[in-house]
Amino acid sequence: MGIVNQLTIIKVGGKIVEETESLKALLKDFSLIAGHKILVHGGGRSATQIASQLGIENKMVDGRRITDEETLKVVTMVYAGLVNKTIVAQLQALGLDAVGLCGADMNIMLSVKRPVKEIDYGFVGDIKEVNVPVLRDLINENFVPVLAPITHDGMGRLLNTNADTIAGETAKALASNFNVRLIYCFEKKGVLMYENDNDSVISNMDYELFQQYKTEGIIQGGMIPKLENAFQSIAAGVKEVIITHASHIHKGGGTFIR
Amino acid sequence: MGIVNQLTIIKVGGKIVEETESLKALLKDFSLIAGHKILVHGGGRSATQIASQLGIENKMVDGRRITDEETLKVVTMVYAGLVNKTIVAQLQALGLDAVGLCGADMNIMLSVKRPVKEIDYGFVGDIKEVNVPVLRDLINENFVPVLAPITHDGMGRLLNTNADTIAGETAKALASNFNVRLIYCFEKKGVLMYENDNDSVISNMDYELFQQYKTEGIIQGGMIPKLENAFQSIAAGVKEVIITHASHIHKGGGTFIR
Repeated sequence: MGIVNQLTIIKVGGKIVEETESLKALLKDFSLIAGHKILVHGGGRSATQIASQLGIENKMVDGRRITDEETLKVVTMVYAGLVNKTIVAQLQALGLDAVGLCGADMNIMLSVKRPVKEIDYGFVGDIKEVNVPVLRDLINENFVPVLAPITHDGMGRLLNTNADTIAGETAKALASNFNVRLIYCFEKKGVLMYENDNDSVISNMDYELFQQYKTEGIIQGGMIPKLENAFQSIAAGVKEVIITHASHIHKGGGTFIR
Repeated sequence: MGIVNQLTIIKVGGKIVEETESLKALLKDFSLIAGHKILVHGGGRSATQIASQLGIENKMVDGRRITDEETLKVVTMVYAGLVNKTIVAQLQALGLDAVGLCGADMNIMLSVKRPVKEIDYGFVGDIKEVNVPVLRDLINENFVPVLAPITHDGMGRLLNTNADTIAGETAKALASNFNVRLIYCFEKKGVLMYENDNDSVISNMDYELFQQYKTEGIIQGGMIPKLENAFQSIAAGVKEVIITHASHIHKGGGTFIR
């Protein structure tokens, strides 16, 4: 399979998508990637800010947002509206035929409201199904899907959904149709050996090493689910997962997971 | 041309899209229309409310919103995010494969920032081009486009655009591919002979009668540009324009313009 079957999925969140200059630089880099592309974005900081301005309390548990009715409105506005369309308009200006979608659009991502166990996350969705035929057709027609982290339950309810998970599930679902490369962009250069040394990037990681570093406490916190996700993607046929800094997409580097 | 080439474009705004029950009823009626469908929506009241809550001044001139940088963010959030995705999720639940789009998505609607004359409307777009091939293909693949009144200039800038105009321009652009029927839904039963008598609906109107009623002062205010728009659509090949109450889509009635 040549370049025609290459699909790069980029997940980007944090400050990068919410500051004009860093977003512009990222989208420029994204536009220069050869082959098919999907962009998955977050927008949590803007959501937090706008919720505060609207007098809605931001409730977080382990970095996850508790999503009540009012919060759902805010994340729908910010993710599927402001952030998504700002990105789409800029990609169009860069010559990419971008299309901004949430999970309800074309029914591309169906989820179920997370069952209440110890914590009631509210209107949060766990992905049940990715609509492979629709996404595959869009990609083959050279559209560039820009995915907002909002899904739906098929019964009329929108659900707030983790953007890392959307990127991972999309990558897995499309792995039988394309050579998928999944890149998680964030504010560090990769998975670090020493938390405070931004140059101590672990270049390559396999599952064994991951287990070892976890046991040794080198890898901890939010990086554990991110990496679990990455190894699941590899197991499902994704060719390569890269965790790197947003400005390093074309520079190589970062942590490679195979 | 049979039902396969029927395309009904419904424009709906005002209170109807912003109150849960009336929206639900409208979408149910919309889902029961035979043939191809497009829904164009507004959302101005929610935008006004959220702008106020965020401390952004709402500036209106002749019923048109002056759109500065901050207001553009609000209308993008509300129209392309909250209102659009709420509608799409509900249509999906009703069995329609809806896809919510603003003008930047798939480059479906290109506009130019309105030139400053007596009034500087800010980031408001006048439509330059409707992407007929993309909309036609979506419709023929049985997707139901749900259009938010936000367009783009192709250079990375989103622009606030009048929803009536979006509906009219879309109808005109698709008139050579489909038998287009354009329905403007609002809160009255049609164009009224006597402003305060909601039962004095003018059933049929041609251009001559319109001119006469305009001269006599029977038709005035915001109804004049709406009707000008309607007659332009007819002149461009749209089969029928109907102005009616949102709850009367299947009941007949309203004002027919041919």
